[in-house]
Amino acid sequence: MYDPNEVARIREETQRWESSTLKKTLDRFPERQETFVTTSSAPVERLYTPADIADTDYVTDIGFPGEYPYTRGVHATLHRGKLWTMRMFAGFGTAEETNARFRYLLSQGQTGLSVAFDMPTLYGYDSDAPEALGEFGKCGVAISSLADMEILFDQIPLGEVTTSMTINSPAAIIWAMYIAAAEKQGVRRQQLRGTLQNDILKEYIAQKEFLFPPEPSMRLVTDTVEFGTHELPEWNTISISGYHIREAGSTAAQELAFTLADGFAYVEAAITRGLDVDEFAPRLSFFFNAHNDFFEEIAKYRAARRIWARAMREKYGAKQERSWLMRFHSQTAGVSLTAQQPENNIVRVALQALAAVLGGTQSLHTNSMDEALALPSEKAVTVALRTQQIIGHESGVANTIDPLAGSYFVEALTNRMEAEANAYFRQIQRHGGVVPAIEAGFFQREIAEAAYIYQREIDDGQRVIVGVNEYAVGEAPAIPILAMDPQGYQRQLARLQRVRAERDNAAVQQTLHRLADAARDETINLMPPILECVTAYATLGEVSDVFREVFGVYHEPAYF
Amino acid sequence: MYDPNEVARIREETQRWESSTLKKTLDRFPERQETFVTTSSAPVERLYTPADIADTDYVTDIGFPGEYPYTRGVHATLHRGKLWTMRMFAGFGTAEETNARFRYLLSQGQTGLSVAFDMPTLYGYDSDAPEALGEFGKCGVAISSLADMEILFDQIPLGEVTTSMTINSPAAIIWAMYIAAAEKQGVRRQQLRGTLQNDILKEYIAQKEFLFPPEPSMRLVTDTVEFGTHELPEWNTISISGYHIREAGSTAAQELAFTLADGFAYVEAAITRGLDVDEFAPRLSFFFNAHNDFFEEIAKYRAARRIWARAMREKYGAKQERSWLMRFHSQTAGVSLTAQQPENNIVRVALQALAAVLGGTQSLHTNSMDEALALPSEKAVTVALRTQQIIGHESGVANTIDPLAGSYFVEALTNRMEAEANAYFRQIQRHGGVVPAIEAGFFQREIAEAAYIYQREIDDGQRVIVGVNEYAVGEAPAIPILAMDPQGYQRQLARLQRVRAERDNAAVQQTLHRLADAARDETINLMPPILECVTAYATLGEVSDVFREVFGVYHEPAYF
Repeated sequence: MYDPNEVARIREETQRWESSTLKKTLDRFPERQETFVTTSSAPVERLYTPADIADTDYVTDIGFPGEYPYTRGVHATLHRGKLWTMRMFAGFGTAEETNARFRYLLSQGQTGLSVAFDMPTLYGYDSDAPEALGEFGKCGVAISSLADMEILFDQIPLGEVTTSMTINSPAAIIWAMYIAAAEKQGVRRQQLRGTLQNDILKEYIAQKEFLFPPEPSMRLVTDTVEFGTHELPEWNTISISGYHIREAGSTAAQELAFTLADGFAYVEAAITRGLDVDEFAPRLSFFFNAHNDFFEEIAKYRAARRIWARAMREKYGAKQERSWLMRFHSQTAGVSLTAQQPENNIVRVALQALAAVLGGTQSLHTNSMDEALALPSEKAVTVALRTQQIIGHESGVANTIDPLAGSYFVEALTNRMEAEANAYFRQIQRHGGVVPAIEAGFFQREIAEAAYIYQREIDDGQRVIVGVNEYAVGEAPAIPILAMDPQGYQRQLARLQRVRAERDNAAVQQTLHRLADAARDETINLMPPILECVTAYATLGEVSDVFREVFGVYHEPAYF
Repeated sequence: MYDPNEVARIREETQRWESSTLKKTLDRFPERQETFVTTSSAPVERLYTPADIADTDYVTDIGFPGEYPYTRGVHATLHRGKLWTMRMFAGFGTAEETNARFRYLLSQGQTGLSVAFDMPTLYGYDSDAPEALGEFGKCGVAISSLADMEILFDQIPLGEVTTSMTINSPAAIIWAMYIAAAEKQGVRRQQLRGTLQNDILKEYIAQKEFLFPPEPSMRLVTDTVEFGTHELPEWNTISISGYHIREAGSTAAQELAFTLADGFAYVEAAITRGLDVDEFAPRLSFFFNAHNDFFEEIAKYRAARRIWARAMREKYGAKQERSWLMRFHSQTAGVSLTAQQPENNIVRVALQALAAVLGGTQSLHTNSMDEALALPSEKAVTVALRTQQIIGHESGVANTIDPLAGSYFVEALTNRMEAEANAYFRQIQRHGGVVPAIEAGFFQREIAEAAYIYQREIDDGQRVIVGVNEYAVGEAPAIPILAMDPQGYQRQLARLQRVRAERDNAAVQQTLHRLADAARDETINLMPPILECVTAYATLGEVSDVFREVFGVYHEPAYF
């Protein structure tokens, strides 16, 4: 903390500067805009000085990396110890095609895997379901049964890599397939390391890929948390995700607040289930967006760590340091990419990725320049991976820990982010918690309003998007885009038919019946019966249908 | 300044952290390297805290933007007032081709011009001289006479744009052609704004494009300073350039120190000439590299402003604020670009450009991704320009002034840079000043040693260059490169013949004679007779030959 006399002196000097040098300049040269705001439309002051962080105490508020409140990072050596995991979100077409992409990425220096699933899989449908028509393999890989999962990880040692899986409503089913595939490789589930997104709350809030109503969905999440806590001690059972909240148009502060609120909701659900917070909290992980506003993003990550640590220790009574740590994956902002002038996206991604690294990320996906046009081509994804490698090896920013600590601007922004999140927590509290606030449309309205303001700023030309509302050129972009295997869909249908023909169908029916019974009994953890189903080669659609029948299907009410 | 008790408390806490949390981590997970260094091989500590800047006083050392010592920037509103000038270094082939590129760049949102000249022009030879053979238009535009200069700026209003010209030994001649071309457009020289590189000292130190010995070269520079002071009050008479020193392999601290030392030498020469420091100092500008090491570069710019301001006020007795300001252009590091995987260069350039902006640059060139392969194609240069526009409009970093101020790391690095530069100034002093130090090979040896260390680190694999000594792929890069007009050389030769045929050759001979006489008299400013020559369409080669004869030609002695 600065000495109060020193702060008073700096305040006086600032006033003197404002009324002399600054005034003289402003009289002659007005600024570019009357006010300046972040990407989230939050105000940015002209100048930050020690007076803006006069009440911030170094030891208690900023502190040391690897120590409470973790503002400076979750590890004592951070990226000096090891660089973040370079984890490219990838998946398209068949399991064979995506397996080839995974192996290519690993050969190029990627250090972790991240699976993108196609729309039918995300909604719990087999590739040949009528609901899947026309969506096969388009935004990710199609996984309809354990047979697909085995191919997806063919020749990839699941005891060594870490795998992130972006799946939510059917998360438990897909996770079960992963565990089963690993065990067929001879890898014990206790050894498995990775992350299941499994964050259903943000689906209701933003992403909208939900199947069941909130209550049974929360039960499924809590079942996986409980199961993971006992059976897969190295697995991150939930990746509490702000990414999609941000992509839906939220501000940085909303992303921060809503994501942490979801996290608290999962913690509370698991505690209600009877789990000890120190048993499961160390395996909760987070997933944030890395958007355009360089310093706002960095402040967001730093604030997130401090808020989480304080809440876990002070509110939820966690006693172990590992429970206080907010570890996070980050991904550059898909919405910030433009179809126009795709090479510009390389620049955007580089700046966004740098912010994530300076914010202390544990893992990072960098978007490919062509993602506004198609799924990433091999060339585009390679440039995106190289972006991380250049930041890691050439820019020097990984050589010291939290290099922005102390910056008047960054520390003031970190404090403001924390205060804004706390204000949102109070609002959510007034709604009675996250699920009631979802049911009341609170988050959805807040996000819609932020998205509206942002879009209006673009439409008015107040906010410049390079190549879109300024510096546009007429030509269509000419970059090669990914071509998928034209035979992939037929191959997938044939495999699915073969699976159904070759498995023991009576046994499958038995496992599905047992699962339905278990689903009707809230005291039973559903992971073991799901594992039984998928190991017997019950398909994703079949297992999901059980839940659709028992839990019902959720339709979002109209909020507006 | 922090309260000493507070600093003592932070030091104690740091020791506690080191012996507890950090030790536990290091015992289990050693760091990636035993020591971490910057791109300049300077040490980087694990963690910086307020204790590292305990003696830095906010008001006197960091201060306010637009106020002495200018650590936070030269203007009170910096990039909120106006974004830096986006100034792409461009030039190839004939004046026609380069004129078309200039007009293209202006149409794409470039805000200033910067001329690259070809090798014959840089060495004072006409395009048809035997010495020029094979070098026409290769690394810049060929300018042999006023006729070329008129075409170069055809349809470009020289009273409105600002133009930077990278030319040194023949700087006075090329500048005279520019002034003459402008006056033919009806623009008075008093209105002209722009920058002449005109920094001959760094040619001896690093770039090696010198013609004459140091003494007459310094006279030519001082003549332009004197002429500009009286005749072109808005023109930056020298752009004191660290860029080439850095490209030759120096460290950041050497770039900083040697460049500022050169600056002091020009100041001393002009004072010796009898000029008042406050008359000419406001028109001295600087040119720095923006290299890979993100924070080292930012600290370099911040330190440069503070050192220059302190020296100008305290050592050279400048009384006007405008004389204390170190304004600078920056360019991303050409040497950092790789021929392999050219898209990776977009990433490097984006990070380097961000550092330049965060360091408060007034003007910026961003290298094109293909510059390790050829001169920039239109597409590549557009991406490079878009890089600046994205930083300016989308990243938010231009919305507050000097956002890194206060960062323990950045402020500590800024202090260290200043101290390292001061140590170099003392060494140069011991040599008797810059020219004697050049003659003794001091700078050249220091740079060679730094370049050797850097290269050894790459060869040893300690330093990773992405796509080169790691993450390399076999394929040759496939990007379209610039094709020059195959008729350009013939057109240039024809124009030169026409100029020589159509001008009044007797008058030209008279002007050249008068120039030779003036060159022999050190009390005469050479700019007026040079202007006479070029206005009569004497060629670059003819005027340079006069100086070659009177001043002699310089050959660098062997230092090693």
